[in-house]
Amino acid sequence: MAALGVAFLALTAADKPAPSPQEVIDAAPASAWKDIPAEDLVLIRFKDGSSSVLQLAPAFAPVHVANIKTLVKTGWLNSAALIRVQDNYVTQWGYPDAEEAPLPAGVVKVPPAEYDHAPSKAFKPLPYKDSFSRAGHVATWPAATDGKRQWLVHCYGMIGVARDVAPDTGSGSQLYTVIGQAPRALDRNVTLVGRVVAGMENLSARPRGTEELGFYKAPPEAGRFTSVTLVSDLPASERPKFQVMDTDSATFADWVKARANRSGTFFVKSAGAIDICNATAPIRPKP
Amino acid sequence: MAALGVAFLALTAADKPAPSPQEVIDAAPASAWKDIPAEDLVLIRFKDGSSSVLQLAPAFAPVHVANIKTLVKTGWLNSAALIRVQDNYVTQWGYPDAEEAPLPAGVVKVPPAEYDHAPSKAFKPLPYKDSFSRAGHVATWPAATDGKRQWLVHCYGMIGVARDVAPDTGSGSQLYTVIGQAPRALDRNVTLVGRVVAGMENLSARPRGTEELGFYKAPPEAGRFTSVTLVSDLPASERPKFQVMDTDSATFADWVKARANRSGTFFVKSAGAIDICNATAPIRPKP
Repeated sequence: MAALGVAFLALTAADKPAPSPQEVIDAAPASAWKDIPAEDLVLIRFKDGSSSVLQLAPAFAPVHVANIKTLVKTGWLNSAALIRVQDNYVTQWGYPDAEEAPLPAGVVKVPPAEYDHAPSKAFKPLPYKDSFSRAGHVATWPAATDGKRQWLVHCYGMIGVARDVAPDTGSGSQLYTVIGQAPRALDRNVTLVGRVVAGMENLSARPRGTEELGFYKAPPEAGRFTSVTLVSDLPASERPKFQVMDTDSATFADWVKARANRSGTFFVKSAGAIDICNATAPIRPKP
Repeated sequence: MAALGVAFLALTAADKPAPSPQEVIDAAPASAWKDIPAEDLVLIRFKDGSSSVLQLAPAFAPVHVANIKTLVKTGWLNSAALIRVQDNYVTQWGYPDAEEAPLPAGVVKVPPAEYDHAPSKAFKPLPYKDSFSRAGHVATWPAATDGKRQWLVHCYGMIGVARDVAPDTGSGSQLYTVIGQAPRALDRNVTLVGRVVAGMENLSARPRGTEELGFYKAPPEAGRFTSVTLVSDLPASERPKFQVMDTDSATFADWVKARANRSGTFFVKSAGAIDICNATAPIRPKP
């Protein structure tokens, strides 16, 4: 079976070299995983019966995240839709401009530009070079720094706030997620507010829009929302629960090392390198 | 309209800064574009009526590409299918193992490992650093080098040969294309044989497979092929024609510079950097 990587799963004790990334994950102690707070999780249900779960990052974009939580809690987003899918770039959701109702009370229409931050001591550099800046993680989030400022980076599955030209920063009524090669040129230009933790395929595998910039002429019914809910507002028994690998753990360091130095019977040459967007923290349903 | 980049298209002469990447493309002289030879183009038609066009790279993987051309010309691939779609990784096609007929005469079953090459003087380095190696272009293809060897790199839309564990190199009967963050760990481990030049969305936006590694349990009918044709075997009037930007041209250098240093009314901060997979050569239908 020409499976392009099936060897990862077929290693036997007899020819076992350094552990594979998956073996590092499988052997991770419970202490290497951190629960994701239910109040930061947003569940989107689509008309086609599928769903996606987003994790918000209040520590990095407090005003935008507060806006988004208000939009969710007031039900304002309940019948929004996927409105744009541009191949190798982004999937964007919200209301088509003509459908957008006035924002509910409490939403800050032009929040401060939460594009970057003072450097945090929690920044843990990746021990590999990066094409763009010094890259690493802050409390499980992919980040970069130039020594003076620090910011989240546009990796696959990261969620940002769509906006028009500066000084507009976007209210959070339209969000997007990255569905292709990391568009790092957007770093420090757009507010990143979270990441997709489940159902990424229900955002990335949608039909591409045919209008300019991948907007849909009309949002397909399948990608209309039926509800958007803060997971902490669901009955306890219905809450999806997720964990993210602690990026300060020894397990995470081992996993990154294994990703950067692939071995086993499939790999002929190891890269000895990795970029930040191939080193985003593993996420799993809570066992 | 919170369009995330609409400003590119809305610049007026009044506030015109450095040209945007799109403006560089729009102003490119005809001499900056190179015709892609019809004999290197493969047209795949799917049962859902959509299609994709691939460009093969015989200069980099002559034995694998000869195999693929034989598989196309003999009609062996005519009823193949998309068999695997793994989110943020690859879409793979060929026959499910149980369906694969014996390879036609002339196909080399275990070709030489065309993973890398002696350095070519045609290598034009990108004037920006790369997370993995020294990166650049060879005759319009994204490539990297360590000074001793040179190889094509796994950018979005690049096409590789699926294989099992080494020393298997894959015959070319199953191919894949990258549909997510560049999996550069595969560089020098798998033979890259080309790129998708049109209809990428008909490969990237397919339903993800639910089996291990994103294989389909059974290939969906929509992703079955109805024909696979070498474009040079089509009647002249029916041949799709494409051009790729000459990566040795001044226009291409300007375009890369504009991509690395975004400006205009949308961008607040310029990255001053770019990675090779955000700098792959623009491709267009021949005007």
